[in-house]
Amino acid sequence: MTDRLAQQMRFCLEIDQEKNIDRHTYTTEYRRENDAEHAWHMAVMAMVLHEYANEDVDLLRVIELLLVHDLVEIYAGDTFAYDEEGKKTQKERETQAADRLYAMLPDDQEQYFRGLWDEFENEQTPEARFAHTLDNFQPVMLNDATGGKLWQEAGAHLDQILERNHNTAAGSKTLWEYSYHHFIEPHVGKEIKK
Amino acid sequence: MTDRLAQQMRFCLEIDQEKNIDRHTYTTEYRRENDAEHAWHMAVMAMVLHEYANEDVDLLRVIELLLVHDLVEIYAGDTFAYDEEGKKTQKERETQAADRLYAMLPDDQEQYFRGLWDEFENEQTPEARFAHTLDNFQPVMLNDATGGKLWQEAGAHLDQILERNHNTAAGSKTLWEYSYHHFIEPHVGKEIKK
Repeated sequence: MTDRLAQQMRFCLEIDQEKNIDRHTYTTEYRRENDAEHAWHMAVMAMVLHEYANEDVDLLRVIELLLVHDLVEIYAGDTFAYDEEGKKTQKERETQAADRLYAMLPDDQEQYFRGLWDEFENEQTPEARFAHTLDNFQPVMLNDATGGKLWQEAGAHLDQILERNHNTAAGSKTLWEYSYHHFIEPHVGKEIKK
Repeated sequence: MTDRLAQQMRFCLEIDQEKNIDRHTYTTEYRRENDAEHAWHMAVMAMVLHEYANEDVDLLRVIELLLVHDLVEIYAGDTFAYDEEGKKTQKERETQAADRLYAMLPDDQEQYFRGLWDEFENEQTPEARFAHTLDNFQPVMLNDATGGKLWQEAGAHLDQILERNHNTAAGSKTLWEYSYHHFIEPHVGKEIKK
């Protein structure tokens, strides 16, 4: 066995922990979704919905961005979209996690995987913009499918929801409009006052 | 909203149920892994390990095969690798499930997704062969990481394990050899006699 393969295998086993990182989103069975399930769901949705991206996108790159962008949460934890305190330290925690996690890989793959995370975070490519669209669209779809339970519990207000979705249209105007009319509007009157 | 997008959205929500299909495999937290987690894990492993495929592979196609090949289990259920009775009806149950599930999509995507499932099942392309390598390799890796718990509980014998892995080397000789020496040999003496 080469050192290279040994490094790769340690990484492949380490990422199993993404299955333990629960999100706030409920699945259609009304249990918390974890990061691995979320990534899988979005990757298949990218296969189905990529025709609605505003710009031509490289589907492989979109899927790679979606599959790995939450790996940093293995060490940094999930930060809820409406947790204003947690969001203040999110970037620092996640950058340290990325440094640690991707250092497990051989140098060329460390750079490749770190590049994917940086690309997703920076939102400067058509693929990253469309990946963010799906990262916003999928939990909002599940929230609607579960009667708006998450937003009711979180006391989410429309202005917070719109702020969270400020970049949804940048990747796909079609999916943003669908999301607004089908997943957001029906629940706007249901939020709990803080 | 177009009929096309409505069909696609029903499919995107329907597949959420893959998160409820538990496999026999244990994660490193010693709980059952579900199909969505399994597919995600293999897709990332394909990104890391595709250099070990015996033949040149189109990575996007490999990942697509891995992401969707278990969707039929939403209706057909998971069939354990060592369930000899269940395997007798598996093909028929899964074919009916594929007919039902993919009919939800617009015609062109129904053909595309059905084509992915058929390609995976038929094992006639380099991508399908490598996808099968990972579909065998990933649970064996997790079984090793959990002390061989699954094989002990199932009373799996070496001849069954080798039969289950008859096609692992067809996609990657390197990963098969790694798997045999690191994940199988250490547990061969631990199986429970039936």
